[in-house]
Amino acid sequence: MSLTISIDAMGGDYGPDVTIPASLDCLKNNPDLKLILVGDQSVIKQLLPKQLDAYQDRLRIHHASQCVEMDESPSKALKNKKDSSMRVAINLVRDGQADACVSAGNTGALMATARFVLKMIPGIDRPAIISTLPSIYGHTHVLDLGANVDCTAEHLFQFAIMGNELVKAVEGIDSPKVGLLNIGEEDTKGNEQVKAAAKLLENSLLNYIGYVEGNSLNAGQIKVDLIVTDGFVGNVALKSIEGAAKMIGTALKEAFGKNILTKIVGLIAYPVLKLFKQRIDPRLYNGASFLGLRGLVIKSHGGADVLAFKTAIKLAEVEVKKGVIRKISEQVEKILAIRETS
Amino acid sequence: MSLTISIDAMGGDYGPDVTIPASLDCLKNNPDLKLILVGDQSVIKQLLPKQLDAYQDRLRIHHASQCVEMDESPSKALKNKKDSSMRVAINLVRDGQADACVSAGNTGALMATARFVLKMIPGIDRPAIISTLPSIYGHTHVLDLGANVDCTAEHLFQFAIMGNELVKAVEGIDSPKVGLLNIGEEDTKGNEQVKAAAKLLENSLLNYIGYVEGNSLNAGQIKVDLIVTDGFVGNVALKSIEGAAKMIGTALKEAFGKNILTKIVGLIAYPVLKLFKQRIDPRLYNGASFLGLRGLVIKSHGGADVLAFKTAIKLAEVEVKKGVIRKISEQVEKILAIRETS
Repeated sequence: MSLTISIDAMGGDYGPDVTIPASLDCLKNNPDLKLILVGDQSVIKQLLPKQLDAYQDRLRIHHASQCVEMDESPSKALKNKKDSSMRVAINLVRDGQADACVSAGNTGALMATARFVLKMIPGIDRPAIISTLPSIYGHTHVLDLGANVDCTAEHLFQFAIMGNELVKAVEGIDSPKVGLLNIGEEDTKGNEQVKAAAKLLENSLLNYIGYVEGNSLNAGQIKVDLIVTDGFVGNVALKSIEGAAKMIGTALKEAFGKNILTKIVGLIAYPVLKLFKQRIDPRLYNGASFLGLRGLVIKSHGGADVLAFKTAIKLAEVEVKKGVIRKISEQVEKILAIRETS
Repeated sequence: MSLTISIDAMGGDYGPDVTIPASLDCLKNNPDLKLILVGDQSVIKQLLPKQLDAYQDRLRIHHASQCVEMDESPSKALKNKKDSSMRVAINLVRDGQADACVSAGNTGALMATARFVLKMIPGIDRPAIISTLPSIYGHTHVLDLGANVDCTAEHLFQFAIMGNELVKAVEGIDSPKVGLLNIGEEDTKGNEQVKAAAKLLENSLLNYIGYVEGNSLNAGQIKVDLIVTDGFVGNVALKSIEGAAKMIGTALKEAFGKNILTKIVGLIAYPVLKLFKQRIDPRLYNGASFLGLRGLVIKSHGGADVLAFKTAIKLAEVEVKKGVIRKISEQVEKILAIRETS
């Protein structure tokens, strides 16, 4: 099955210097993949190797004259950047020319543009951002990671429905374990929205396992496949984990860098430390999907390097192959139909 | 200056097996310290060494016939456990017999009992839980860590005032850098409560540096002394960090435990890894203070071992010496007076 992904070639802190090598690598690894590089064609052409025969029919450039800045306001980007690489890459998804779009651009602008261009799935009130975090059991899917600061119980419920379909499709499991992020596992814990969302989930067909605490993201008592929370809490948790990992990495470096003796020990331990680092390398978890839209948009970390951006493209490949957006739409339609008749 | 601390000897997952050895160690280390061990006197006596002459005038047992269970509901503990080791230890603070109380008991029951017995500082609406986290700059103070699930801007502002006084006193710095936890640093980010709290903080005398993100707890771009957030977000962030640390520790163990060769490397690297572990050892950060009450209560982690419980007692010693509660009361009174005249 061939699939086509549009790449916002100009997005991210490093733009085409990262997006183009990553794109070429992905084309090499997957013969079914077609890519459309969207952006300033003169810049893109300069960075492409002269000999592209191998990818001739699988790689094309789609010119876009503008570029959304990393700190540009979403509303300004939406209004003034109608020919930006970001906007045009999303247009290609809307027009059926691409099955998904990958961008390392400004999250707010990407979300606003994607929502404006692709529109919402009927029955879903708000889009949500989902990604995976490494865990002692493998990994955990988490949403929302920052699209919505205030969420009602119904929003949280919709996030759970969408996330559940994604996890089912991507992981190939029938009944993912779904947890609701809270500050304790007892029924009395939490705010009103979370308590009301718990009731909706208990009465749903999802495999809802109850409240989980922050440690469940990476290392809970039991494996949870999907953790649902609002965008404020989810974003703070995600960034807290990033900070903890950075601090621990720094402490490890300091311990091995303390003196000549510890440095020698560090050299001996290097292969083991490298193995350890690979296991939790955030670049291997790069890529967040926007759910709730009528098309697939994958957001890469703005500071992604080639390896990280490749991970985001691969995520798009998997979600296209597994028909994630279609499955979410169908499921939401089903639930709406049940609600209407009940 | 002599100081007296009451110890809830029965609290925590391990009760007197942890609280008593930790108490004896603290007495040994600080000749100015007096301790009151509160709990079942027959159990306590059994665990104390026969020869206590060295501490004769610095250690006494105060019998309490009941014990609050770790999973007991706060309201039930409050109603039915009037002679619990927890309640009596707090009573001693109220009655001026102790300068502070340390308990590893059930957080909800401890907070409810402390609030009931000690009452709030006039002008403070809600108590908050503050603790420190290790950071690449040393450590960061954070509140609220779980006492309040929903907070208004005024609550967040009050937390900042109280936390600021604690940091000033404990760290001996004049003007701690205060940050408000949010999901971005731009003015447009965040929910309504956080935006309104930012305005209150901007117009205050605090050294408010603006919004900070989750990574600032352990490893932000700049050092922040105090991070303010609501109890839901703070608790999730804290536990997310605990989970991340556990996962990273597990990955490190797995890497060194992979085969005989990596195990040998692990033995060579052991002293360095031990050094590293000490730097971020959570036991050295154990102990959270309840702020907003008219007396000092320190909550130790329920699963604390002797070293961790000692850390919590030492925290109580420092906060008593520095007059944290008195300074908070004075500051709140000052602010109230200014508000009334303006």
